[in-house]
Amino acid sequence: MALLEDLNWRHALKGYDTDKDVKVEDLQKIIEAMRLAPTSSGLQPFKVILVADKDMKETVASACYATNEAYVRESAYTLILAGWDRYTEERIDNVFKHTALERDMPIDRYADYANKLKEVYTKQQTAEENFAHIARQVYIALGLGLAQAAELRVGSTPIEGYDAKKLDELLKLDEKGLRSLCLITLGHSHEEKDWLATMKKVRRPLKHFLIEL
Amino acid sequence: MALLEDLNWRHALKGYDTDKDVKVEDLQKIIEAMRLAPTSSGLQPFKVILVADKDMKETVASACYATNEAYVRESAYTLILAGWDRYTEERIDNVFKHTALERDMPIDRYADYANKLKEVYTKQQTAEENFAHIARQVYIALGLGLAQAAELRVGSTPIEGYDAKKLDELLKLDEKGLRSLCLITLGHSHEEKDWLATMKKVRRPLKHFLIEL
Repeated sequence: MALLEDLNWRHALKGYDTDKDVKVEDLQKIIEAMRLAPTSSGLQPFKVILVADKDMKETVASACYATNEAYVRESAYTLILAGWDRYTEERIDNVFKHTALERDMPIDRYADYANKLKEVYTKQQTAEENFAHIARQVYIALGLGLAQAAELRVGSTPIEGYDAKKLDELLKLDEKGLRSLCLITLGHSHEEKDWLATMKKVRRPLKHFLIEL
Repeated sequence: MALLEDLNWRHALKGYDTDKDVKVEDLQKIIEAMRLAPTSSGLQPFKVILVADKDMKETVASACYATNEAYVRESAYTLILAGWDRYTEERIDNVFKHTALERDMPIDRYADYANKLKEVYTKQQTAEENFAHIARQVYIALGLGLAQAAELRVGSTPIEGYDAKKLDELLKLDEKGLRSLCLITLGHSHEEKDWLATMKKVRRPLKHFLIEL
């Protein structure tokens, strides 16, 4: 029941205790959970950007709406999940070459499969269609990162409420072929400021969530 | 390290042993992990559709591409993750009324916040923009469902390779205001048919996954 307990424990922190730190090995595990996240065809079409520096946190905070600004500032670490701006032949080839190498197989072992993906993603789809698909994969990792933080009893806030265009410009993500999708702030709950901590977790009841065919 | 161990254990099953069943309580925990998944503003904009019946599995299989057809047929259970086709005022109001009731608060406790969301989602965005946002939330649950299955050592395959339009028509999901996004087949690995089981899990090395600012 560990994961269910962790998911019941977690909530989106609404205030951080800046006196409490997050252990580096815990941070590493949270990033590792995202690195191990399953993604469509194993392409892992994203990167995680770690923001630990105080000034850099200010930069990220400046792109955030309302209270999210404070969460970034007060967090021990802020993570930016940034998806590839689109699939490219080179990106797809690199994934499958790496896989073949790691599995001691001929370098072109997955060429047929890679070619099929390249046909669909780079010939039949637009960059925006690519990015919509990429964004979904990134959210798999978002969920697993939050779950890993909860397992370690590290608090977190998933943040969509920021100006992605502004943040991407500030960090020059386009030069890296990336577009940010969401942030995760990490730290520990502040006893007074985190008003959500003591509230009942509410989810739709099973009878309105599950359809049995 | 439980979640990391579970993520390292899991892979997308490429063949199911139809002699091995999945316990009902394990299935329930997998669905529960998805019900507990965090979503934007807590809206939980999706449903999980459970397919256990043999004939119904055939129907779902008929919309699948290539080998995915066999996974659905051979699975102990197949889950369909279906997002709301769009946000509506009624759907948003229902969520916050339910939350207020569960927390013993006045029914209009979250009215201001709900109104802000309604303005953005139903006035400023198109249905397609809604659905793109909804799809991302559903993939958070996808990841957590796969992680919960892995914790229970239940095999799974996440499936995007099917004709969503066809499946949605077959199941008349439009009448429910839903659009399917992905499937999860559940069961146990077949020693010979599941060719991926013995292969090394490959992920991008950390130095190509993490950017430190």
